Amino acid sequence: MIRYPTRKTPYRRPKQHTANRGMALEKLINESNRHYREHNRAVIHKKPTPVQIVNVDYPRRSKAKITEAYYRRPSTTDYNGVYRGRYVDFDVKETHERNAYPLKNVHAHQIEHLRAVSEHGGLAFLLVRLAHLDEVLLLPYEVLSGYLERAARGGRKSITFKELRASCLPVAEGIAPRLDYLSAVDRWLASKDEEGRP
Amino acid sequence: MIRYPTRKTPYRRPKQHTANRGMALEKLINESNRHYREHNRAVIHKKPTPVQIVNVDYPRRSKAKITEAYYRRPSTTDYNGVYRGRYVDFDVKETHERNAYPLKNVHAHQIEHLRAVSEHGGLAFLLVRLAHLDEVLLLPYEVLSGYLERAARGGRKSITFKELRASCLPVAEGIAPRLDYLSAVDRWLASKDEEGRP
Repeated sequence: MIRYPTRKTPYRRPKQHTANRGMALEKLINESNRHYREHNRAVIHKKPTPVQIVNVDYPRRSKAKITEAYYRRPSTTDYNGVYRGRYVDFDVKETHERNAYPLKNVHAHQIEHLRAVSEHGGLAFLLVRLAHLDEVLLLPYEVLSGYLERAARGGRKSITFKELRASCLPVAEGIAPRLDYLSAVDRWLASKDEEGRP
Repeated sequence: MIRYPTRKTPYRRPKQHTANRGMALEKLINESNRHYREHNRAVIHKKPTPVQIVNVDYPRRSKAKITEAYYRRPSTTDYNGVYRGRYVDFDVKETHERNAYPLKNVHAHQIEHLRAVSEHGGLAFLLVRLAHLDEVLLLPYEVLSGYLERAARGGRKSITFKELRASCLPVAEGIAPRLDYLSAVDRWLASKDEEGRP
């Protein structure tokens, strides 16, 4: 569908391919969310991609056509909704690294947003896919912030896969839902409840 | 910024002006949300307008330019977020009617979404502005659904302003925040608590 009218040299993939990398993962999450909604387990949606609209045509007898627009940087995460009365807010990340997840993959505005959500009693987390291992992990914001603090103190700028596995909740892949991340949320909530007990 | 290259006759406003009517109100809500975020009272954002992207150009040395796209119908409401640990989800509506709010202004997919949110323990509501009276009311989904049921049984297809005032929570207008709808949510939660008492 994409034409390159002004380009003579062969097309090269734009630089921000980290955004595209998540595409397959995004599809799995979107299908899982549909499954959750249809089975009345949660109401979670992906937010639309933010677009700055510059020019719109109104051709006769047809609907408005946007003829000039640009992608904007999202100010929040991509997914939010309600589960068991709780506010749920997360972003999905995919890494092709083989040993550690680089913290630079999480943007400052996303960290800020997750921190605020967590402070207000929401469930804030990342779903991280280790592509080479075909493994998905739920990384709670509280855990992520520990690694961010370590990096800020001059420590390593990534989370080793060993650390991730020790501090995250594994997400099971299946058919329906494709990625049962809400069961990981359940285990997370159960462990929070245990911590809260005397 | 809008050009009409094919149009010879004077431009007439596209038919769905109910969507634009809410613009001023939307701005008040967006500013209120910024105020709430800056004062750490809640994390509530407007969702981006959903757009179906058909064609993107990648001009040399500049960012991706969307050259063909269309507005899509939103599948949810426009606003959601977290307040006092609760999931908050609402849409804003404005009416220029003088006596009653027409129920046809609330689309079926929005009703369905608000119902699901409410069922999952979220706070689902509409903010309705009576333009001629310069009055804003918080209409909880539970109250709205009563009027929808009346209409389904053959009753009136609108809510009279008198009924609205008796069954909604008034929203105070001010400077900061512009529309203090979270204080109306507080009163709503307090009345829910009272109902719950023996």
